[in-house]
Amino acid sequence: MSSSGTAPAYRRLSVDERRSQLLLHALDLFARRPPEDVSLDDVATSAGVSRPLVYRYFPGGKQQLYEAALRSAADHLERCFAEPHTGPLTTRLARALDRYLAFVDEHDAGFMALLQGGSVVETSRTDAIVDEVRRDAAEQILTHLGASGRPRSRLRLTVRTWIAAVEAASLIWLDEGKQPPLPELRDWLVDHFVAVLTATAAGDADAAAVTRAALAMEPPEGPVGSLVRRVLPVVGDATHLL
Amino acid sequence: MSSSGTAPAYRRLSVDERRSQLLLHALDLFARRPPEDVSLDDVATSAGVSRPLVYRYFPGGKQQLYEAALRSAADHLERCFAEPHTGPLTTRLARALDRYLAFVDEHDAGFMALLQGGSVVETSRTDAIVDEVRRDAAEQILTHLGASGRPRSRLRLTVRTWIAAVEAASLIWLDEGKQPPLPELRDWLVDHFVAVLTATAAGDADAAAVTRAALAMEPPEGPVGSLVRRVLPVVGDATHLL
Repeated sequence: MSSSGTAPAYRRLSVDERRSQLLLHALDLFARRPPEDVSLDDVATSAGVSRPLVYRYFPGGKQQLYEAALRSAADHLERCFAEPHTGPLTTRLARALDRYLAFVDEHDAGFMALLQGGSVVETSRTDAIVDEVRRDAAEQILTHLGASGRPRSRLRLTVRTWIAAVEAASLIWLDEGKQPPLPELRDWLVDHFVAVLTATAAGDADAAAVTRAALAMEPPEGPVGSLVRRVLPVVGDATHLL
Repeated sequence: MSSSGTAPAYRRLSVDERRSQLLLHALDLFARRPPEDVSLDDVATSAGVSRPLVYRYFPGGKQQLYEAALRSAADHLERCFAEPHTGPLTTRLARALDRYLAFVDEHDAGFMALLQGGSVVETSRTDAIVDEVRRDAAEQILTHLGASGRPRSRLRLTVRTWIAAVEAASLIWLDEGKQPPLPELRDWLVDHFVAVLTATAAGDADAAAVTRAALAMEPPEGPVGSLVRRVLPVVGDATHLL
């Protein structure tokens, strides 16, 4: 019962609104099934419109719709890594990972299909979109480290390989029935980042300066303090290495 | 001039020999060019045989030849990780990485095409072969750690994500004109492994036991001793975290 006392008027959607609506339904379908199992009829049925209407908006058919849905997913993923430049680095990283992993959790089937390939749709353009997300995420993290704009640096290699590890961990997590719980996976990925950054700092002056600055901002009760205190008993017996 | 004083006799190759010869030429071509730029004619020319002969051995055409070449490359990659179970773990890992990275160096274009997708050949079966190599490499490493047969363990997640990082680092290395030199990349990947293993050990009893045993076998002048001594000055200022 609307406050005006009348039934909600049927409203014609604008071109942009209709396009967004169709993309939302497509993304939802692609998220739950691999692209080869989604038809334009499915999208039309889900959105409550006719198949010709879907074609009017996406004359390139499923390939165009899939790419547009992927583009909108990529934009979402890139926003995951946008984070204010304040507070300890591990807090920012944990928040970005929470958003990224929530996306993986929500779009599981689509995420797996996208990253594992084997899709019937043409892959070179979709691969380029996925690669753009990876590069964008790496740039965001390098900016937080105060180390953007160094094309072939060891720091960049560290961040990019860590992103590959995050992707692999996400796929394994989906493959293993979403175990361990997401907060555990996120904490492990943060520890993983601190570990590889520190190992890189051991052999690279640039990475060492960045790591020193990052460690100085970490509170004792934060993840790095916790990691240091948990690592010491493990390496404590290896005094012969000092 | 042969020692017998006669010209080498023309010898008809056996079926297996001919098949191996064609695969060798195919692998060499696929290594230098993406699969879509290699034709059966190219393989025939390279091997000095007729096109119909190539078809007789690979009636499925390029797809079958590509898969067979990939299968033989996968067998080679899996052998890279076969290593005697003696000596410090980092020495074994460095030797496996040397073999793996030599393969990446030698088969650069084919390696990139394979892992970056975008190939015109059907991908789900080739993806399965690539995934088998990854799983096999992970099993080999877990066996060296004395930790095979634990399906969902944090150790397995660590090893599998490290393998994803090695793949990503290999692709970035190729993309950046094969810089840094391979021994530097190999040493960094070994440090990377030690770092993530230790970070995982900080939160997992199983990984802690494995890490303690591995550290006990490392000599002070080895890569872990060197890493520990290089890490200490970086983290030395962060005493507030202890």
